[in-house]
Amino acid sequence: MSGVSLGELAVRFGLALRGDPERRIERVATLAGAGSTALAFFVNPKLARELRATQAAAVLLREEALADCSVDALITPNPHAAFARIATILHPMAPVAAGMHASAVVAADAEVDATAQIAAQAVVGARTRIGARCVVGPGCVLGDDVVIGDDTRLLARVTVLDRVSIGARVLVHPGAVLGAEGFGFAREGAAWLHVPQVGTLRIGDDVEIGANSTIDRGAIEDTVIGEGVKIDNLVQIGHNCTIGAHTAIAGCVGIAGSSHIGARCQLGGGVGIAGHLRICDDVGLTGFALVVSDIDEPGVYSSGIPVERAQDWRKVVGRLKRIDGLAKRVAELGRQQQDGEETA
Amino acid sequence: MSGVSLGELAVRFGLALRGDPERRIERVATLAGAGSTALAFFVNPKLARELRATQAAAVLLREEALADCSVDALITPNPHAAFARIATILHPMAPVAAGMHASAVVAADAEVDATAQIAAQAVVGARTRIGARCVVGPGCVLGDDVVIGDDTRLLARVTVLDRVSIGARVLVHPGAVLGAEGFGFAREGAAWLHVPQVGTLRIGDDVEIGANSTIDRGAIEDTVIGEGVKIDNLVQIGHNCTIGAHTAIAGCVGIAGSSHIGARCQLGGGVGIAGHLRICDDVGLTGFALVVSDIDEPGVYSSGIPVERAQDWRKVVGRLKRIDGLAKRVAELGRQQQDGEETA
Amino acid sequence: MSGVSLGELAVRFGLALRGDPERRIERVATLAGAGSTALAFFVNPKLARELRATQAAAVLLREEALADCSVDALITPNPHAAFARIATILHPMAPVAAGMHASAVVAADAEVDATAQIAAQAVVGARTRIGARCVVGPGCVLGDDVVIGDDTRLLARVTVLDRVSIGARVLVHPGAVLGAEGFGFAREGAAWLHVPQVGTLRIGDDVEIGANSTIDRGAIEDTVIGEGVKIDNLVQIGHNCTIGAHTAIAGCVGIAGSSHIGARCQLGGGVGIAGHLRICDDVGLTGFALVVSDIDEPGVYSSGIPVERAQDWRKVVGRLKRIDGLAKRVAELGRQQQDGEETA
Repeated sequence: MSGVSLGELAVRFGLALRGDPERRIERVATLAGAGSTALAFFVNPKLARELRATQAAAVLLREEALADCSVDALITPNPHAAFARIATILHPMAPVAAGMHASAVVAADAEVDATAQIAAQAVVGARTRIGARCVVGPGCVLGDDVVIGDDTRLLARVTVLDRVSIGARVLVHPGAVLGAEGFGFAREGAAWLHVPQVGTLRIGDDVEIGANSTIDRGAIEDTVIGEGVKIDNLVQIGHNCTIGAHTAIAGCVGIAGSSHIGARCQLGGGVGIAGHLRICDDVGLTGFALVVSDIDEPGVYSSGIPVERAQDWRKVVGRLKRIDGLAKRVAELGRQQQDGEETA
Repeated sequence: MSGVSLGELAVRFGLALRGDPERRIERVATLAGAGSTALAFFVNPKLARELRATQAAAVLLREEALADCSVDALITPNPHAAFARIATILHPMAPVAAGMHASAVVAADAEVDATAQIAAQAVVGARTRIGARCVVGPGCVLGDDVVIGDDTRLLARVTVLDRVSIGARVLVHPGAVLGAEGFGFAREGAAWLHVPQVGTLRIGDDVEIGANSTIDRGAIEDTVIGEGVKIDNLVQIGHNCTIGAHTAIAGCVGIAGSSHIGARCQLGGGVGIAGHLRICDDVGLTGFALVVSDIDEPGVYSSGIPVERAQDWRKVVGRLKRIDGLAKRVAELGRQQQDGEETA
Repeated sequence: MSGVSLGELAVRFGLALRGDPERRIERVATLAGAGSTALAFFVNPKLARELRATQAAAVLLREEALADCSVDALITPNPHAAFARIATILHPMAPVAAGMHASAVVAADAEVDATAQIAAQAVVGARTRIGARCVVGPGCVLGDDVVIGDDTRLLARVTVLDRVSIGARVLVHPGAVLGAEGFGFAREGAAWLHVPQVGTLRIGDDVEIGANSTIDRGAIEDTVIGEGVKIDNLVQIGHNCTIGAHTAIAGCVGIAGSSHIGARCQLGGGVGIAGHLRICDDVGLTGFALVVSDIDEPGVYSSGIPVERAQDWRKVVGRLKRIDGLAKRVAELGRQQQDGEETA
């Protein structure tokens, strides 16, 4: 019998059940798209109408939403987290096909756990150690002396440079480049001299790294990505950076070299962080924010400006460029008014 | 005899010809760089001087420009489009070398059309179907159950994840990652739980996707790229987004998850679009524009600010940060002046 | 005996030595992290305390810093450049393992120098010429008619399209895509026609290109990267651009098509440059700067705005959007005040 029953889910995840414990769930779906074998979840009050109309087999929700739900319900204070765990059971990752594909090129002295998978066209360098149940996906290139913890998956075409270490249960999406030499140059006259980047990159457990993101190795000391950090696609993290545990970094963020981001921070899309800064724990940065000095206080920070009609915006920019003159004119008016009053 | 005659071009593309129908064209060139076997085009009035001086065999132009052209001319209301079509004939894509390279790794149950090419070091997963005259270039990795329409080309090192479908005549540049799992996490205490992304990615006909761009699969429902959409390099499109037909997206754009972009939009370079938004058809966004709420009216929108000398800009930013105080001071002056007038 | 003596370094690089010429250096380190066999350097006055406390074998520094250094010292007007050169000796690049890996696919008529290395899973196209002591790293894909100068290294998974030429001593980091067709389309009704990009890309000597960066080939004429240009990760350079010698481009920069950047420019992270512009030599652009018109004067330019607390920033943005009204109100107050004075 396929799927899992509501009763099993309630027991396994400690959820309260209102409804039929024998009802079977085969997949997850949205409230609007769910059919009679699908589980949906409800947290966003804007979707109350969808909740009332849903055809789902059951809905994960908080107790206070129960009245609006006419189908079976699994009740929990954190429906999204329960949804994540149940979806992982219903839609598991591809099983690990232990062994090395005939087309993979693996150094004779690499230590690959017998339960790990080295897929087609992958390359694994000398003395590299790959843990239990790891997946080195098709087209991945691992340098020498790389260390990869258990249950980590490099999905496809990931590059890991020499001496990088990656923790356990890490998920790396295709095209990411981990531990390349960063942008380190010394000026000599008009020219730039390459400075060898002798540090490495250490990635903690339970990290996720998005497609085509790049994280440079340290110039002298190491770049360090803390445990549980989540990094989206097309993110650049420069040499010597440290990222605190459980920080989440959205797409297209750039972090220049030698900056230190605290734990549990949330960086919105396109954020830019200059080099040699410290950002404390629990800082939020909204999309397109630019940080050029330290942030010492938790809280949410912004500097992005939302769009206007282009013709209106041109006027705003023109005025902004002359704001210094405007401020001086206001000061002058203030003085004149005061003079006028005094002479009156 | 190499090339094509002006007469043939006139007939084939419905162009009016002024000049010698036997003159042969072998290549395309700029007005300034064209020699006696090259075809150039003229649309930009700033290049009128180059038009008058050109040594081209012939020029594609609008009728009103004819007087400024002393060489042969092909006349059309849309010279750039005619140029594109003729350049495609003179500089065709590499022919498709049907068959699978010995080094490619293709699943036994993949269905590859006999006229398609699977290049060196490519990987094709189980049950994947590849249409007629397709090219799966060197180093490409295609997952399981992928579907690719006729005449589509994945040029090199493109990754296509499981179950993604791609239409006909699609062109994907090297390094693109299509259908990776997006940035989907559920917060649980300080940590983030990975939410399996069970939707997929559907790409329409005649789409073009730039180098190292990334388009995520849907979280539950699908990410959808409409027909004729053109996407430049290093663009990020988040999970669940839909992009309307013939929309053009320039380089370094980031679109967060679950946003819906209309048809025939034009997004300039570096534009950022927050998640869960709707942007209607026929919207233009100039470079660096940031969108954080719905756009319901066609038109052009902006929020980018062009550079100033750094020392002047620092003053502007200082004043901007104090604009609230400035506005309050102006209000105060207004009240005082009114009081002054009333007491006068 | 491992490492190199201070005396050898002093002679080889023309440095003044204060201390023991027999002392041996085995590695480089930071002032704070250096042990008794490590060389550090000092240029940043903020690190004066670290200099005074360092346990390094020796420190590279300027003469005026000598008093603060209690260990051996190598004295030079440019400590960072000397550090770069010495680090290159102590931490050399991996030696070139001449020859072609059995898994590489190299066209029969490619001309690969006998001293060059073609690594595992690489692909080299027809008539491509690869110079002495080059490295074509694992998973690289080179098209047809590519030319690569001596001592150039494509580290891993680099794509080089047909006819691109790369100079000598160039270093390309993993995932870069060099010479893809740019974003060239002609509008025809609602749709976009692909315009074949018939130019190519020429990269000068001593260039460095970061991970996952993309540089497009020219539409008709060539894209040109001048000698000594340094390009960081995730940078996009559009078709037909030219970049002057020794210009440095930080991460996440986007340069639209047909723009021309001068020599010795420095572009900060996330900078955006619109198309068809000219930027003269010796221009600095700070992070997030947006350029939409020519820059004719050397100097530093900016338009980025640093973050504020989100609630304060919302107020600033609100006021900014109404700045036109504010300016008009100030003008009105000025007129009223003048009227008041005149009637007084």
